[in-house]
Amino acid sequence: MNELRKDYFRDRWVIIAKDRGQRPDQFAKKKKEENSAGPCFFCAGHENETPSEISRIEECGRWIIRCFPNKFPATSDEFVDVEGPGDGLLVKRSAYGRHEIIVETPEHEKNLGDLEVGHIARLIDMYAQRLEENRKDPRIKHVMLFKNQGGDAGTSIEHTHSQLISLCIVPTDVRDEVEASKRYIRERCSCPLCDTWRIEAKGERRILEDDRVAVFAPYASRFPFQAVIIPKRHTTSLEFLDMDERLSLAFALKQVLSSLNFSLNYPSYNFYFHTAPKGEDLHFHIDICPRISKWAGFELGGGVIINTMPPETAAGHYRDLLKQTDE
Amino acid sequence: MNELRKDYFRDRWVIIAKDRGQRPDQFAKKKKEENSAGPCFFCAGHENETPSEISRIEECGRWIIRCFPNKFPATSDEFVDVEGPGDGLLVKRSAYGRHEIIVETPEHEKNLGDLEVGHIARLIDMYAQRLEENRKDPRIKHVMLFKNQGGDAGTSIEHTHSQLISLCIVPTDVRDEVEASKRYIRERCSCPLCDTWRIEAKGERRILEDDRVAVFAPYASRFPFQAVIIPKRHTTSLEFLDMDERLSLAFALKQVLSSLNFSLNYPSYNFYFHTAPKGEDLHFHIDICPRISKWAGFELGGGVIINTMPPETAAGHYRDLLKQTDE
Repeated sequence: MNELRKDYFRDRWVIIAKDRGQRPDQFAKKKKEENSAGPCFFCAGHENETPSEISRIEECGRWIIRCFPNKFPATSDEFVDVEGPGDGLLVKRSAYGRHEIIVETPEHEKNLGDLEVGHIARLIDMYAQRLEENRKDPRIKHVMLFKNQGGDAGTSIEHTHSQLISLCIVPTDVRDEVEASKRYIRERCSCPLCDTWRIEAKGERRILEDDRVAVFAPYASRFPFQAVIIPKRHTTSLEFLDMDERLSLAFALKQVLSSLNFSLNYPSYNFYFHTAPKGEDLHFHIDICPRISKWAGFELGGGVIINTMPPETAAGHYRDLLKQTDE
Repeated sequence: MNELRKDYFRDRWVIIAKDRGQRPDQFAKKKKEENSAGPCFFCAGHENETPSEISRIEECGRWIIRCFPNKFPATSDEFVDVEGPGDGLLVKRSAYGRHEIIVETPEHEKNLGDLEVGHIARLIDMYAQRLEENRKDPRIKHVMLFKNQGGDAGTSIEHTHSQLISLCIVPTDVRDEVEASKRYIRERCSCPLCDTWRIEAKGERRILEDDRVAVFAPYASRFPFQAVIIPKRHTTSLEFLDMDERLSLAFALKQVLSSLNFSLNYPSYNFYFHTAPKGEDLHFHIDICPRISKWAGFELGGGVIINTMPPETAAGHYRDLLKQTDE
């Protein structure tokens, strides 16, 4: 039976179309999308071709992670509020904020899932530093960290990198999630994401966990093989994780991404960090969204996503893969 | 300056990233996606390979438009409400409704934009009939008509067709639009879409109009070359349009689609119909969304869409093309 499932605590629905179902391996890419031959301007030795560096992490005297402004930002340096002439129907303001690029490794042909856990932990340090720095601007209301991997995930430069956009408004989906979380906390005196993990820990959507971090396939997954990573401790943003938590997070991210790469042949994916806007409370989490299906007219028009891969099947697939690599 | 723009009357934002801008022709596909050689099971002569026909429109003794159930529906025939064991966090119900296919022409190689206006008007009659029929089921709360054209728009069968999904819930985005529209009507005693056209009729986002129907590029466009078609008369659904209005609608749809085909080399696109749910008031409109850009991590995580094609430029491009074909 095809099911309508509601998001844990938001009023947002998906259709889990089991009856249309495919086996996990039918989602695999026929051909791995190979990076074209480097070097590109994200590579070591081409530092003077990027905008001025903001920050770097070094190892043995050379950079291993590097951050600089996006050459073609989606944001604006100007801070202007304008109301159009349209009697309240045409409202605009400058897209004030910053748009940064974080190059994850100097090596052109590397994929994030192939990097060592230690290296990914350093990347998480860089994310934390950039989040903290961007939050200092009082006009910035929210900072979004995200990654686009592969053509179907909207990347234009193939050298592996993440991005950060800080903005003078809280993006709609973050705002809606914060509002729903606040309502839940008010009504039940507990955090919806802490409660969610308490339920998912016992069940068939659990993917992996250690003492600090948990990973599961969300009940109302919008993407085949979607995975959510949360710190077990109720924390509102990445900067507040200690060293051990960051290492667990790096390990979990590596496990999910290398499982995807191994079983689906390096698929396109996005991930994004949902952190609490300033002064708000939201249990920080990372959403990993493989882009192996397409949203079509029904999804765009209705906001109800049709997903043919039940999260229970997806989580089972992850668990099988992780067991194999354990052995 | 890159701008944050608010939707006319909903609390939904986009970034119009002018500074990243491309010229209209840079969005054109290098190579037209050709249909593979027919016939397929949507073609004339293969009627017995589809599920049982629901309806057809004939001309000179042969069908020109045909409707039947989707062989792999996203919906379910069963009507069940279930609450999961997850203490209110796991809520589901059956995706009760119908999923229908409307084949727009017996000819395998045709594109909707290439069909005659008279043929498109008959297609609109079929849409109206299917909407009306599906609404009769008291358990159906909303009916969505939509089209997926081309691989980037999520189509799996290339023979040109539209789809209908009727559902036991009102999809999130329709519900949000209806709520926002009701709020606007309560506050201002007028319809937000009637008011929108009053503003856009004078300006640079106007694409075309006749006495009955208007087309414009919406102020907070989520897609490059997005176009909205509305009947000028305040009407809640397609069935309530008279013959002349339907003909105007067919003409407008043909103009937009053939402009896209001509200037962007048969791009992928979706369109969807926003009609009022039963017992509600919403000014019916059609949203045409070319799929020539990709939503990436920022869009998926934040719900704020980055669009590099200002609607003013897009509308100007449409107007230039339509002037050329007039001459």
